[in-house]
Order: sequence, then structure tokens, then C-alpha cells
Amino acid sequence: MAIVEVSIVPLGLSTTSLSEQVASVLKPLKCSGLHYTLTAMGTIIEGDLEEVMKCVLRMHEVPFHKGVGRVYTTIKIDDRHDKPATIEGKIRSVEDNS
Amino acid sequence: MAIVEVSIVPLGLSTTSLSEQVASVLKPLKCSGLHYTLTAMGTIIEGDLEEVMKCVLRMHEVPFHKGVGRVYTTIKIDDRHDKPATIEGKIRSVEDNS
Amino acid sequence: MAIVEVSIVPLGLSTTSLSEQVASVLKPLKCSGLHYTLTAMGTIIEGDLEEVMKCVLRMHEVPFHKGVGRVYTTIKIDDRHDKPATIEGKIRSVEDNS
Amino acid sequence: MAIVEVSIVPLGLSTTSLSEQVASVLKPLKCSGLHYTLTAMGTIIEGDLEEVMKCVLRMHEVPFHKGVGRVYTTIKIDDRHDKPATIEGKIRSVEDNS
Repeated sequence: MAIVEVSIVPLGLSTTSLSEQVASVLKPLKCSGLHYTLTAMGTIIEGDLEEVMKCVLRMHEVPFHKGVGRVYTTIKIDDRHDKPATIEGKIRSVEDNS
Repeated sequence: MAIVEVSIVPLGLSTTSLSEQVASVLKPLKCSGLHYTLTAMGTIIEGDLEEVMKCVLRMHEVPFHKGVGRVYTTIKIDDRHDKPATIEGKIRSVEDNS
Repeated sequence: MAIVEVSIVPLGLSTTSLSEQVASVLKPLKCSGLHYTLTAMGTIIEGDLEEVMKCVLRMHEVPFHKGVGRVYTTIKIDDRHDKPATIEGKIRSVEDNS
Repeated sequence: MAIVEVSIVPLGLSTTSLSEQVASVLKPLKCSGLHYTLTAMGTIIEGDLEEVMKCVLRMHEVPFHKGVGRVYTTIKIDDRHDKPATIEGKIRSVEDNS
């Protein structure tokens, strides 16, 4: 189980408002059934790494389908093979140590 | 007002559990009075960019004070001069478009 | 054709020296035949996005095969559908504008 | 001595060509006298962390001076207190292990 954060930024749009674009990018994720959480700086997804990455690439393609010419995507993968990790568990263990 | 995400990863520790380290890194942020939110992949801070970045650098120094030899820090800055932006407002506007 | 930057950081190692780990992570990339360049902060790969990402995931798995328990990987994708982009071309066009 | 990678992406521009913007963003860095190298995915700077970060923030401000409304900046810091690190040294030690 990996935890993956993704931010997808379409370039070449004359507007600085990206929330509509971000909302449409989330559609393949919603369909995937993967557990995720939306933050102010990206989307955090939890699951089997290969499955999550397939979904991330589908999300990355969305702006191109809408006519965008260039997409800039940032991905962070936190992958543990030594113990299970979840989005909620990671936050809780920091709070427990605070 | 900028929104800044930071992840601070200490290297050279024989353990894969970083939650104690992450908790200690948050101390300068708590003292700063800046508005922030903890995610599974980092900490998101809102405020005047210069003030936020000063705090981020203080957070980055914490592991060194604890004897860590190498720190790997990732920062994402979303900075708007065209309209005010907040952590909660960004998430809300994506949800409103969903 | 996309340009992808990847940094793979193994966690839980008691040493701060990662160059041996980085060298082993490059092996699947060398075998792939993809064009790439090594920088001080990661590896930049050029090619068909799906092919590059498959290679990146193979690279990400290498530390686990060596007994590492947790791997932290950062990926940046710059993907253009409006014109061809290459590693050398991107640098040259910045220099031409300088 | 830290090694810092920065990518500065101006948003709200109707063009997908950013090389002119990237070139102008480099001006404060050239004036700083800091050692740096340009890659296809960003700029890597070497030096005292506080000095480098001051320069990075000046670079981040450049697009705003040109009328851009929103700037998205990604920074990676690799900071060692246990031994000196340089841009060239990091690449060489990976190559020596290959």
C-alpha cells in the first residue's frame, strides 16, 4: 500500500483560476473507487502503487482531452513495504507524537 | 497571501518511522501563529510568503539540532497576487465545481 | 513525448550517503534505452509518457529488492501535446532567450 | 552548503511557451554570483542555504513584476551538515558507483 500525492497544473490557460480544471481531473479518481483526500495543494491517494499510478496517469490526461496543450504534474510517492500505511494513520501518528 | 506545502525528510536514520521527527519539526510552526493544516504528505501553511518561508527554514533546521546529518526538504508555493487565497477556500472552490 | 524528472530516496538507512543506492536505481533506466540525463537532484528522462512511467516504477522498486523498507519518490512530468519537447531543446530555448 | 532545485511556473499565460519567462527568472540568480546549473526541469543552485533561499524568493517574484497573477514554484533542498556537497560532486559520486 502506497500513499501518493498528485498535483496537475494545466499550462497555456489565460485564466489563473484552476478549480474547474482540478474538479474535472478528479473524475477518473472518483470512478476508480480508490480512497483519496483533497488538500489545498493536491490530491492524496492511498492504495496499491500500480493501481494508483494508473489512475494518476488517467487524471493527467484529462486536461489534454479538454484542449490544453501542456500539463505539468507533480507526484510524491511514500511507499512502505515494512508496515501498512494509510492517509489517516500517518496524520494520527504525527498527532500522537505531538 | 501564499499557500505553501512543505515536507521535511531527515536522512541517515536507521528507522523508517518518521512521525516523531515530523512532530518535532512542527514546533516552530506552532509557535509562529501561522494558519496551517497537516496532511498525510506534508504540512500546508497559509500566510505572507516571506513570513511563511522564514518559518519553513526554521522547521528545516530542527532535525539538524537533533543530530541528523542530512535533510531533504520539498516545498511547493502557490502564490497569487490577483486575488486572496486560503487553504479552505481552495478546497471549497474545487468542491463547488465538482 | 514527455520530460520526466524523478528522485528516489530510500529511507531507514543509517548512512547519509546515497550515491550507491542512486547508482543501482539507474540500472533499469540504462536497460530501457530511454534518453536520460543525471542531475545533482534527480534523473531527467525523455520519451513516451507511459513508457517512461513504467521505467520510473521499476526504478522505484530497486531499493525494496535490496531490503529497504520505505522509499520516498518525487516525480515531475512536463508533458506537451502541442509541440515536440526534448531535454536539450528545453535548455537551449531558455539560453536563446537569455 | 546546500543544493537547491527550483522550478518557477507562471500561471494565467495564454501561451504554453515559458522559455522567455524562465530566462527572465534567472536574472536575479546571475546577479547573485551563486554557482548554478540549468536543467530541463529547473535550476540547481549551490551555496549557503539562507543566501540561496533569498535568491530563490527574488526569482519567484520576477513573473509578478511582469504582470503575472499567479506563480507556482517547486523547491527541493538537499542539505548536508555532515560533509560538503557540490553539484558536480553529487553527480560524480553516482557515476563512480555505476
